[in-house]
Amino acid sequence: MEINVVEKVMKVNDELAQGVRERLAKAGVVGLNFISAPGSGKTTLIETALRNLGGAPRIAVIEGDPDTTLDAERIAACGAPVTQVNTAGGCHLEANLVNRALDGFDLEQIDLMIIENVGNLVCPVSFDLGEEKRVAVVSTTEGHDKPAKYPKLFRTAHVVVLNKIDLLPYVDFNRDIFRDSLEKLQPGVEVIEVSCTSGEGVEAWCDWLRRAGKG
Amino acid sequence: MEINVVEKVMKVNDELAQGVRERLAKAGVVGLNFISAPGSGKTTLIETALRNLGGAPRIAVIEGDPDTTLDAERIAACGAPVTQVNTAGGCHLEANLVNRALDGFDLEQIDLMIIENVGNLVCPVSFDLGEEKRVAVVSTTEGHDKPAKYPKLFRTAHVVVLNKIDLLPYVDFNRDIFRDSLEKLQPGVEVIEVSCTSGEGVEAWCDWLRRAGKG
Repeated sequence: MEINVVEKVMKVNDELAQGVRERLAKAGVVGLNFISAPGSGKTTLIETALRNLGGAPRIAVIEGDPDTTLDAERIAACGAPVTQVNTAGGCHLEANLVNRALDGFDLEQIDLMIIENVGNLVCPVSFDLGEEKRVAVVSTTEGHDKPAKYPKLFRTAHVVVLNKIDLLPYVDFNRDIFRDSLEKLQPGVEVIEVSCTSGEGVEAWCDWLRRAGKG
Repeated sequence: MEINVVEKVMKVNDELAQGVRERLAKAGVVGLNFISAPGSGKTTLIETALRNLGGAPRIAVIEGDPDTTLDAERIAACGAPVTQVNTAGGCHLEANLVNRALDGFDLEQIDLMIIENVGNLVCPVSFDLGEEKRVAVVSTTEGHDKPAKYPKLFRTAHVVVLNKIDLLPYVDFNRDIFRDSLEKLQPGVEVIEVSCTSGEGVEAWCDWLRRAGKG
């Protein structure tokens, strides 16, 4: 019985996700689903992009968190349209939450809809939100073993952002092991190395978003 | 129907957790449940303790991960009894997995059973594993906002380890905001600041484990 219920939940989510995908496509909006561990720097990557892209592409953000509106406040301070979705302790976003959040935006004025998922390397991976591309973020301080330990995310990501590379001199992070384990999970996957603190890689990150915004 | 199923799962887990608790108590073993985000340094904190405590208290470890035996190999290299539990992509440990893992240990030879949960600040919090105490670990690189965003863990932790304090000069982490938000969630909660890299706070961390090992 339990398995049937889980399957039903996933089926309903997939149907709703398809609706979100069609709704975004109709308005010419590309959806991105950002997934990472808590504290890997997703919000800072979005803030940095907003400050550097100068309004092209036009970005809006849906912020997912178990609690608080801290992240939405940071995005609003950058001048981008944003909606906070609190999961009330829940561990991931689902398509119905995204669908409702879309009501708060004028989709015709948006090129890229960034959906920042709840910080979690496991549960969000199983839930399609209707995005076109999935962005996996991992920071150098989390260790090079994360792709091997959480393979499902890194197999399904369209791009992997290795964040906080300014901290590489101070942490035990082996780039070769990291890159090799990614290659095993998904040969040829694009990796962008970024530090929002030093600015290194920010232009490559913005370029990726510009290309994504063209659909 | 879905709610009933979830309630049933939780009820079964709670009963099994009570069994684990009694099994450990009978053998004079204190169970600790380590919960944190991926990459916060749980395994390194355990390795550092094993290398500094010199066998008193006698520690054994259950390692939870979605995949790989990387962490169990690190613990075994320190000479401690260890069992890896792979959740096959699952986002948290449950009491039945811990109960089965206990079969692999000679409990009469153990004072402290450390259970390292899957890296995740949400799902593990809802599942009692039969532990006596819950250890929350957060690293400075994750940001000072984590208690506010993930309040349930920090309300229920018996101790909070702030790890990687050697990186404080390089990251945007406000100790006052962190401490204040913890105080709001759980007044008087013990916080131990540690760097396994510089060694700062390691003695306080080992002391806490020595006290915990006395039951």
